[in-house]
Amino acid sequence: MNLILLHPDDFIAPQKIRLSDYRFEHIRTVHKAQIGDNLRGGMLNGLCGTLTLLDYQPESVLLSFTEEAVPPAPLPVTLVMALPRPKMLKRSLQTISTMGVKKLYLINSVRVDKSFWSSPWLSEEKITEQLILGLEQAGDTLLPEVELRKRFKPFVEDELPSIIKGTRPLVAHPYQSQPCPAMSMEATTLAVGPEGGFIPYEIDKLQQIGFTSISLGARILRVETAVPALLSRLFPTLP
Amino acid sequence: MNLILLHPDDFIAPQKIRLSDYRFEHIRTVHKAQIGDNLRGGMLNGLCGTLTLLDYQPESVLLSFTEEAVPPAPLPVTLVMALPRPKMLKRSLQTISTMGVKKLYLINSVRVDKSFWSSPWLSEEKITEQLILGLEQAGDTLLPEVELRKRFKPFVEDELPSIIKGTRPLVAHPYQSQPCPAMSMEATTLAVGPEGGFIPYEIDKLQQIGFTSISLGARILRVETAVPALLSRLFPTLP
Repeated sequence: MNLILLHPDDFIAPQKIRLSDYRFEHIRTVHKAQIGDNLRGGMLNGLCGTLTLLDYQPESVLLSFTEEAVPPAPLPVTLVMALPRPKMLKRSLQTISTMGVKKLYLINSVRVDKSFWSSPWLSEEKITEQLILGLEQAGDTLLPEVELRKRFKPFVEDELPSIIKGTRPLVAHPYQSQPCPAMSMEATTLAVGPEGGFIPYEIDKLQQIGFTSISLGARILRVETAVPALLSRLFPTLP
Repeated sequence: MNLILLHPDDFIAPQKIRLSDYRFEHIRTVHKAQIGDNLRGGMLNGLCGTLTLLDYQPESVLLSFTEEAVPPAPLPVTLVMALPRPKMLKRSLQTISTMGVKKLYLINSVRVDKSFWSSPWLSEEKITEQLILGLEQAGDTLLPEVELRKRFKPFVEDELPSIIKGTRPLVAHPYQSQPCPAMSMEATTLAVGPEGGFIPYEIDKLQQIGFTSISLGARILRVETAVPALLSRLFPTLP
């Protein structure tokens, strides 16, 4: 946790914060912070700044917070990802959030097992939990938005054309593809298939509305490896 | 599993293979392959080719194998990585193997918990298991070499100078760093710190022997995200 993310409920007075959940445990046992120590903090969807440890109580910690700076810039990308298996979903949500994606569509595909859609990890609360862990890792405060789309065809035909408007629409596909385009901060819609890839029909549908297939080379990467590799290749480093 | 990796022991006659382990299960239940079907195969540390399913037996499958092509090109990189926590080690070994790293040093650092060194996941057998899963994912056959170095200072002072000879020595470090250099197939030694990063003394030691600190930007990435992001940024796509 490289930043302690604060929620409005954490404030017990203006500038005074009480934490008693996993953040308290982390400050106590991982940071091993002492009274007077400073830690990086940030308001959820707000500014980053400095937390100062005021006091420990038996089951909580008291801190003050000073706002200082804007969070790291987001990536100009909308990610459209075939729903991964629950274990991979958890990690992928963290990774996506850590890397600065702010808009994610989790969609269906023939190769998405139907059971994945009834995973308890798809509840809004569980998704937010993972996204917040990702932000705390990155040192970011802006919560990504996640949308679920259980039907491929209506999503691609009715909704995706307006999502990709004004962006470069790319689909990561290891077969019959062009190499990744040069790095740029151009607004991008990036589609990533399931394990085993989108089927030819799905690739066709995406290409029909304007998507270009791109590839990272001969090696087939798992989703959780492909996503950081693609984002890192497509967008330049932000200070 | 995008390639079934074969070992010399799998051959019961020239060109005739019997598999009864997880590969048998995978062919039967995931590929759901029928007699006569072709699957991608490869000889460990040898050529890639085509497996043809000859017959199912109660607890095994018989296949023939035709060698056809060289495996994907390796990345020209030696990775020097602070030993991650066991759970992350497992995934990192797979990722590293999938992405085409062929030489890995797992090293100590002040921020590596001592207990990590006694993890059962560090046995040669367990390491090889994870590396092979990574190769089978990528469609590669060349097993990476992994070396363990439990003492930071002797490794950096006595061994690392000859490892980095003729390579660009880079250490991923989010603070006081230069942006990642342009993509190139230049031979590279890439050092990646533990969670929390190398301590200043360790960065100093690396810089003294010629390492340059590079960064992927303001966001702090977990090791398992940083490694694919760095490799994808440093090396061009290979066909």
